Amino acid sequence: MAPTETLTPERILAATEDVLRRHGAAKATVVDVARALGVSHGSVYRHFGTKAELRGAVTRRWLDRTTAVLAEVVAGPEEPPAKLRLWFAALFDAKRHKAGDDPELFDTYSVLARENSDVVYAHIDELTDQLTAILQEGVGQGRFEAPDIGVTARALFEATTQFHDPVHAPEWSRPGAQQSFDTVLTLLLRGIAAR
Amino acid sequence: MAPTETLTPERILAATEDVLRRHGAAKATVVDVARALGVSHGSVYRHFGTKAELRGAVTRRWLDRTTAVLAEVVAGPEEPPAKLRLWFAALFDAKRHKAGDDPELFDTYSVLARENSDVVYAHIDELTDQLTAILQEGVGQGRFEAPDIGVTARALFEATTQFHDPVHAPEWSRPGAQQSFDTVLTLLLRGIAAR
Repeated sequence: MAPTETLTPERILAATEDVLRRHGAAKATVVDVARALGVSHGSVYRHFGTKAELRGAVTRRWLDRTTAVLAEVVAGPEEPPAKLRLWFAALFDAKRHKAGDDPELFDTYSVLARENSDVVYAHIDELTDQLTAILQEGVGQGRFEAPDIGVTARALFEATTQFHDPVHAPEWSRPGAQQSFDTVLTLLLRGIAAR
Repeated sequence: MAPTETLTPERILAATEDVLRRHGAAKATVVDVARALGVSHGSVYRHFGTKAELRGAVTRRWLDRTTAVLAEVVAGPEEPPAKLRLWFAALFDAKRHKAGDDPELFDTYSVLARENSDVVYAHIDELTDQLTAILQEGVGQGRFEAPDIGVTARALFEATTQFHDPVHAPEWSRPGAQQSFDTVLTLLLRGIAAR
């Protein structure tokens, strides 16, 4: 790649993902990333002070892609019950695609997620905030009932663990997975519906 | 142990669990089990035809202990909503105790469960049948509403994955685990309550 191109954090992170895809989480080094960009490793360190920082940032970027897709659902025109179902369907879909389209990269990011639990917790907080926004909308319209909206958002996220926690990825491609998802969502929507 | 004592399947399985506890899933052999009982390995094979059969049977015995505790809850005097909550609490409790009291044996059985998925599926079917019985009772009394009781039982089991699937064992001892459990259960009970 032409070294005259400005070295931005995004270019470094894109190159890091390529290196992770080729070498895996255990073997990827900052020197590999610098070589892929045609720059010195010192240039990479000017943007990301340590290898750990770079690995945390690339993990955040991976998770942020899902957050961005889901933010569009939150901003969408659906009625709150349909929007809530769509949000979980989009989350399950995004996860299944990440796991199914490039299983090795998915495994690599699962390793990175385990070593960057603070990044993962921040991601879960963002997703729970999105759920809170949908619940708030539904409560405002008299469609949902929730004594504590934040607590209910968290409970919804935890009751759907099977459809987004990477430890369950092997189950996502089994024949009954979509039906499981549908019946759990129906039960949960009934649990928050106004009476 | 005195070899004059009658060699029952239960004695063999108890000895197998001891051997698994001492040697782990990878190293335990039928010869170790026979030695612990003071009998020939041929005597063991008269009860369990293969090593795989013995490992499946000891896995079933481990899971059956939980099934037996939960069957008492199903037969108990509580009203259906309280009984349903108690049943899940007993399941979560049994799992936490198995994981926390003897973590190495728990890991050993997690390995055995992965190699005996048919035994695990049969166990999950039994648990779902117990849930179905509680739901049936509640629907009969006009306390619960469920369009398809078997499907709802399965959905309840899947929505509580985080509190019984061994892959989540590391999370069971974290400070917020009990509160998570309580809020998910409240949401699910609301989802099946008659209106």
